[in-house]
Amino acid sequence: MFSLQDLQDKVNLLIANQEFKKTPPKLYDPIAYTMNQGGKRIRPLLTLIACDLFGGDIDKALYPALALEVFHNFTLVHDDIMDIAPLRRGRETVYKRWNSNIAILSGDTMFALAYQFALQTDHKLVPKILEVFSKAAIEVCEGQQLDMDFESIPTVNIEDYLEMIRLKTAVLIAVSLQIGAIVANASEKEIEAIYNFGTHLGMAFQLMDDLLDVYGEQEQFGKKTGGDIASNKKTYLFLKALELCNKDERKLLNDLYNDSGIDPDLKISKVKLIFDQTGVKADVELLMQDYYDKAMDCLDSIQVQEDRKSQLLILSALMLKRNY
Amino acid sequence: MFSLQDLQDKVNLLIANQEFKKTPPKLYDPIAYTMNQGGKRIRPLLTLIACDLFGGDIDKALYPALALEVFHNFTLVHDDIMDIAPLRRGRETVYKRWNSNIAILSGDTMFALAYQFALQTDHKLVPKILEVFSKAAIEVCEGQQLDMDFESIPTVNIEDYLEMIRLKTAVLIAVSLQIGAIVANASEKEIEAIYNFGTHLGMAFQLMDDLLDVYGEQEQFGKKTGGDIASNKKTYLFLKALELCNKDERKLLNDLYNDSGIDPDLKISKVKLIFDQTGVKADVELLMQDYYDKAMDCLDSIQVQEDRKSQLLILSALMLKRNY
Repeated sequence: MFSLQDLQDKVNLLIANQEFKKTPPKLYDPIAYTMNQGGKRIRPLLTLIACDLFGGDIDKALYPALALEVFHNFTLVHDDIMDIAPLRRGRETVYKRWNSNIAILSGDTMFALAYQFALQTDHKLVPKILEVFSKAAIEVCEGQQLDMDFESIPTVNIEDYLEMIRLKTAVLIAVSLQIGAIVANASEKEIEAIYNFGTHLGMAFQLMDDLLDVYGEQEQFGKKTGGDIASNKKTYLFLKALELCNKDERKLLNDLYNDSGIDPDLKISKVKLIFDQTGVKADVELLMQDYYDKAMDCLDSIQVQEDRKSQLLILSALMLKRNY
Repeated sequence: MFSLQDLQDKVNLLIANQEFKKTPPKLYDPIAYTMNQGGKRIRPLLTLIACDLFGGDIDKALYPALALEVFHNFTLVHDDIMDIAPLRRGRETVYKRWNSNIAILSGDTMFALAYQFALQTDHKLVPKILEVFSKAAIEVCEGQQLDMDFESIPTVNIEDYLEMIRLKTAVLIAVSLQIGAIVANASEKEIEAIYNFGTHLGMAFQLMDDLLDVYGEQEQFGKKTGGDIASNKKTYLFLKALELCNKDERKLLNDLYNDSGIDPDLKISKVKLIFDQTGVKADVELLMQDYYDKAMDCLDSIQVQEDRKSQLLILSALMLKRNY
């Protein structure tokens, strides 16, 4: 069994050893720029952890793990165009540094590269891995579309929002673990349990991301805080605040989201004030706890020696910034 | 053995039987719109023809064939954003009818769908099929990037241009045939021969497309003629005309391509006039003939009964609008 640090080192080394810079440079430079700028690399780590959890051969999981990281980065490159996001991990986004066309095409290439990496494993495993990978890829696109749809409709119910973040974020966390389990030849029941664990973890993780977008430190977070508010994203925070606040606050909150002329910084601070008044932060934390508990129930159902689960428990805690 | 019409019917039926319309509609409506608007569907047809040529089971080739058509359409959806192309097959392009973000994301989804379709065959074939498919997908992106690069550099040599169209167009024609041959369990030598046949055919096909862009009828061609000239594309026609024309014509041609203020229709007619004066059309036709001859040499090297090659010969002739 490997330590979390061992696995993290394997992921970092694997990525560092790839030569993303090829010809034509305008296509590949943005790919190297994206892949070499770090990021938490949670998804490939989850693949290796799941593979190790079920006693699989880590070496067979390396390239499928890389595929998940490349795919994730591809979605960021395209999402940043759609969201008109200037910063990512503290640096200019690809479409900002180059242009939209280059970001589209480099992203497309990354998607194809992801598949190319996913193929580099035991050939018997390939159809199953690519089946779950492709399904997840499509769901991620569905999630992103729902996210964009929500920006332009007046009311979103909380259930729809949660389904959107399941598709946009949780599914990829879940499939990263699932692919690790597939490589380890885990049973169908185990594969399902680790997938469900990942879904719940992913939900909690996205809620944490929503919280950080409002309450995080810009430097630590790597992108401008308040971005969700500035772009009228109807996050769980916003939707729950609407539920919790009084009539006057509700009108103000809706007006702020509908006011396209307002200075973004002013808008962010005013919306934050209402969030604080409603105490919605505690509410989000409660929901996160609920998803975390559900994730733990799934993990409990997996019949392996308890100490094999330690990496996953540590990483989950790190992902959710939990202090234990 | 099937007739060309049988195979075409199979392709059309397969596409007609797919339910591309799903939820969310803004993601899937553009996919259905694109997939249901026809087009020549040459690539899936080539897959079935190659499979049949080598005596394979057509049913196993159907979904990989569909994958190639979906992939091809995905590239068109994204290319049309990059090329700011208003029309495709006589109808509004996706980004025009919806918007760029939707075109990006629907395209991404089509790419994932293509892989999902490619998986629907004999599992033993999947790694090999996806390996060549992914390689081709990356090359198509490289070709599109070179194509964009060429727009903003002053001189392109003809060799570089031909490499660009090999990547952008010929590779996908070639891999469509290659995948059909893989499904039919053809030998490595046969797979290589049909791939090379496809490359040469694809080169001739793209040169025909360049010709049609200037000399085609808008209605028949489905997009505005002169589009390549209007967007300063350095096609073979343009590059060869530069070689053939006299000093004054060369200056005029370069000036026209560098004049961003000129009315597009005026520019198109002036450039066409120079093309006519140089007789470059005949030159392109000669090069097409050369690629066609090379394709035929590859086909001759394939040791199957000659009558099995008839579908491919007919389709090649149709693709190149040859009257025999």
